[in-house]
Amino acid sequence: MTTGSPQTATATTTAVRGTLVRYRNDPFLTSREDAFVHEPDGLLICENGRITAAGDYTALRDRIPPGVTPVHYPGHVISAGFIDTHIHYVQTGIIAAFGSQLIDWLNHYTFVEEQRFADGAYARRVASAFCDELLRNGTTTALTFAAVHPDSADALFEEASRRDMRMVGGKVLMDRNAPDALLDTAQSGYEDSRKLIERWHGKGRNLYAITPRFAPTSTPEQLEAAGQLWKENPGTLVHTHVSENTGEISWVRSLFPERRGYLDVYDHYGLLGDGAVLAHGVHLTGRERDRCAETGTAVSHCPTSNLFLGSGLFHVHDAKDPRHPMKVGLGTDIGAGTSFSLLSTMNEAYKVAELTNYPLDSVKAFYLATRGGAEALGLEDTIGSLEPGQEADFVILDPEATPLLAQRTARVEDIEELLFVLAVMGDDRTVRATYVAGALAHDREA
Amino acid sequence: MTTGSPQTATATTTAVRGTLVRYRNDPFLTSREDAFVHEPDGLLICENGRITAAGDYTALRDRIPPGVTPVHYPGHVISAGFIDTHIHYVQTGIIAAFGSQLIDWLNHYTFVEEQRFADGAYARRVASAFCDELLRNGTTTALTFAAVHPDSADALFEEASRRDMRMVGGKVLMDRNAPDALLDTAQSGYEDSRKLIERWHGKGRNLYAITPRFAPTSTPEQLEAAGQLWKENPGTLVHTHVSENTGEISWVRSLFPERRGYLDVYDHYGLLGDGAVLAHGVHLTGRERDRCAETGTAVSHCPTSNLFLGSGLFHVHDAKDPRHPMKVGLGTDIGAGTSFSLLSTMNEAYKVAELTNYPLDSVKAFYLATRGGAEALGLEDTIGSLEPGQEADFVILDPEATPLLAQRTARVEDIEELLFVLAVMGDDRTVRATYVAGALAHDREA
Repeated sequence: MTTGSPQTATATTTAVRGTLVRYRNDPFLTSREDAFVHEPDGLLICENGRITAAGDYTALRDRIPPGVTPVHYPGHVISAGFIDTHIHYVQTGIIAAFGSQLIDWLNHYTFVEEQRFADGAYARRVASAFCDELLRNGTTTALTFAAVHPDSADALFEEASRRDMRMVGGKVLMDRNAPDALLDTAQSGYEDSRKLIERWHGKGRNLYAITPRFAPTSTPEQLEAAGQLWKENPGTLVHTHVSENTGEISWVRSLFPERRGYLDVYDHYGLLGDGAVLAHGVHLTGRERDRCAETGTAVSHCPTSNLFLGSGLFHVHDAKDPRHPMKVGLGTDIGAGTSFSLLSTMNEAYKVAELTNYPLDSVKAFYLATRGGAEALGLEDTIGSLEPGQEADFVILDPEATPLLAQRTARVEDIEELLFVLAVMGDDRTVRATYVAGALAHDREA
Repeated sequence: MTTGSPQTATATTTAVRGTLVRYRNDPFLTSREDAFVHEPDGLLICENGRITAAGDYTALRDRIPPGVTPVHYPGHVISAGFIDTHIHYVQTGIIAAFGSQLIDWLNHYTFVEEQRFADGAYARRVASAFCDELLRNGTTTALTFAAVHPDSADALFEEASRRDMRMVGGKVLMDRNAPDALLDTAQSGYEDSRKLIERWHGKGRNLYAITPRFAPTSTPEQLEAAGQLWKENPGTLVHTHVSENTGEISWVRSLFPERRGYLDVYDHYGLLGDGAVLAHGVHLTGRERDRCAETGTAVSHCPTSNLFLGSGLFHVHDAKDPRHPMKVGLGTDIGAGTSFSLLSTMNEAYKVAELTNYPLDSVKAFYLATRGGAEALGLEDTIGSLEPGQEADFVILDPEATPLLAQRTARVEDIEELLFVLAVMGDDRTVRATYVAGALAHDREA
C-alpha cells in the first residue's frame, strides 16, 4: 500500500493537476480573500521534495520540466496534507474502548495497552500500521505520543523515516500515578529524552517533542527537568494535555495547590511558549487562553475524543477571538478519538461548534486541519500550505468516493460548499492519494 | 447493486451461518440475559420471506431443507436489519448543508429542495437511490417523510415495493408557514392521505404513516383532520417532530397559547398513542415523557442530526427510566443527519450519552437500532429480531471491513465488545450483505 523512500522521494519531480486549495493566512483573523486561495484548474510542481510552483494550470504549464507529465485528477481537490496535532500511536489498538471518562479510561485501557510497548517488536508492528493508517487518511504530519519506553519512540521515527514523513513525537514522561511498569524517573526520563533528541531531532524529517503525559503523572521534579530539557534544546517541541475533563482539573489542583491553576503548572515549569502544544483545553478559562496567546502556546482541538469521553465542548470561537487568538490545530486523539480521518475530525469540530452556536465554515475547518496545525507546531514556513518553497506533502480528495458523496457533490455551488461536504461526509475513502515529499505514498486504487 | 423482487423473495429458501445476535426483550428494562441472545456459531433458516429457525448451528443443521446450502459468513455478525425510525427521503440531496439551526435550515435548504418533488421523475430517481443507500447501510425498514406532493409518496412506495422492503412513510401535511408551493390544505391533505392509505397501506410490505411535519406548519384544522384520519384508519402510524430545538418550542407556544406545551398540541388532536413516532424529543419535560410512556407514543432519537444542527442532547437514560419507560428507536434524520448508517448513528448516540454521563453499552445500542425501532413502530412481532415467525430482514456485519477495524476486532474479548467496536468504527463498508424478506438485497462484493 505504501511506497516511497527518502532516496526516491527526494529525486522525484512530480506535477499534479486538479482543484487547488491553500492558505496564506488565518481565516479566523483575516478575510477569506486574504487567507484562502483557490484555483479551479490548478497545477502543483514539486522538485526534490519541495513545491516549486503552485497556481493556475494555464499560467504555469510552461514551467513543467521536460519529460514530466502532470498526474491529472479531474474534479479532485488538492490540499496540503492533513496535520494531526495530537495523537497517541501507542493507543491504535484500543480505539473504541467502552464506557469511561478520562481517568478511568486511562487506568482501564491505556495503561494496560502501553505496557505492551516494552516489546520492541510489538512497537514496530504498531508504528508501521499507524503510519500506513495516517497516509490512508491523508495525514502527512502527526504530533504523537509514544509510550514511556524509549524504544517505542525509536520505532515511531524509524517507520516515519522509511516513509519520509515529517513526524513529530516523543517518549512519554511519567514518574507517578501510573503502574510501576510505565514509570520513569525525573532523571531517567530526562536522560532518555535527551538521547532521543540527539538520535532523532532534525534527522531526516523527524522532530522531537518533549512529552510529559500531563501534570498528574509527573512530579514537580520531572516537570522541572522537562522545562530544563526544552531550554537546552531549542527547536524541539513540547507536547502534553491540559484541561480536558473537570475531574482531571480538580485532581491537578489537589496535586499542585501552590499553583493558580492547571495551565499555571506548565507555565511555572517553563513549558509554555512557541512550539508547546497542549491537547484539549476544553475547560481553559479566559485568563488561561490569554496566557496561551501571549506565550505562543498552541491548543490541539480534539472534538471526536471530547465527545467520545464526554469531556465537554471546546469553544473554537473563544480560542480564536481576534483580541487574543490562540494557535489552534485539530487532533484525532487516537485512541480516545475513534477515527484517523481529519475529515471526520472536521465534521466533529463542526458539531461541537454548532452546540456552542458557532457555525464553523469549511474554509476555517480546512485551515485548522492544515495550516492551523502547522502554526501550532511552529512549522508554518515548512508545511501546511502549498506555496513554493514548502515541503511537498499533499492530499488528493475525491468528491465521488462513494455513491452518496457523488450525488451530493454533483450539486455543490462553490468551493466552500464542496469542502464542507467533503468534511461532513468524507472518510478515508475520500482520500484518493497522499503524496509525501513530492512522492506518491498512498494510492487508494493501488 | 440491488437485486430481488417480491416474486423471487417469497419463493426463496435461505440459510445463513455466522455469529447470531438477537433480542427478546428491552435491555434497558430487563437483564442482559433476558434481553439478548448470542449464538457464536449460529444458523438462520428463512422460508417464504420469514424466519423458520434461528439458533445454534449444530443444534439446527438437520433442519436445513434438502438442496439448500447455508451461506457461511465466518466471523461475521448476523443481526436483524436496522430500522431507521426517522428519515426524510426527500432530503437525500441536501445532506451536509452548512451553518444553520433548525428553522433557518428548513427555510434555506429543505423547503427549497422539497419543491423539486413536484416533478414525479425526480421523486422516483431520488426514491430509488434512497432505497439503495438504505440497503447499502443494512437498513431494511425506514419510517420516512415524503414531500407534500402525493406523487412523492407513490414514488417511495413503488421503489420500496420493487425491493420488497418493509417501508413506512407518508406525504407530509403542511398548510401554513412554508412556501405556497409546499402547502396543502386541511381538506386536501386529508383527502390525499386517505387515498394514499387506500393505495399503499398494507399493500405488499408497505405501511402508511400520517405525517404532519410539525405543529408550526399545520393549522389546528389540519391537526384535527390528521387525528380524525388516524382514528378512521387503525393500523396506520403517525409520524411528526417534537421538541427538537428551543426556538421551535417557543414558536409552538406562541402558535398554540391555549395548549400546555408542545406535546399537548399533539395530545389534544388525538395524535399520541401506539404507532405515533415523534422525532427528536430532545427537550421533552419529565411530564411530557410520562405522557408519551402512558400513551405508548414513541420517540425517535436522532443524535447525528441533533449534533449537526446544534439542537441539544437527548437523555436516553431518562427516556428509558424503568418507572415510565418510553419506546425509543434510532433515526438518522437524513438530511439534517449526515449518514445513512445506523452503526454511525449508534456511535453518535454513545457520544451524546457520554456528554450526559451515561455509558450506552452496545447491547442497548443495537437494541435501539433493531428491536427498539420495531417497538417504536408497533412492529415488534413482525421485524426487529431474528425469531421464528418474524420477517427475514437481516444484515451481515464484517469485523474486517477495513484494515483498522480488522486490527481492532482481532483483539475483542466478547460479543459486547465486538458490537461496540462495530458501532463506533463501522460504516456502510461494515455491511457485508443485507437480506430482505429472506433474499439477498445488497452484497458489498457484488
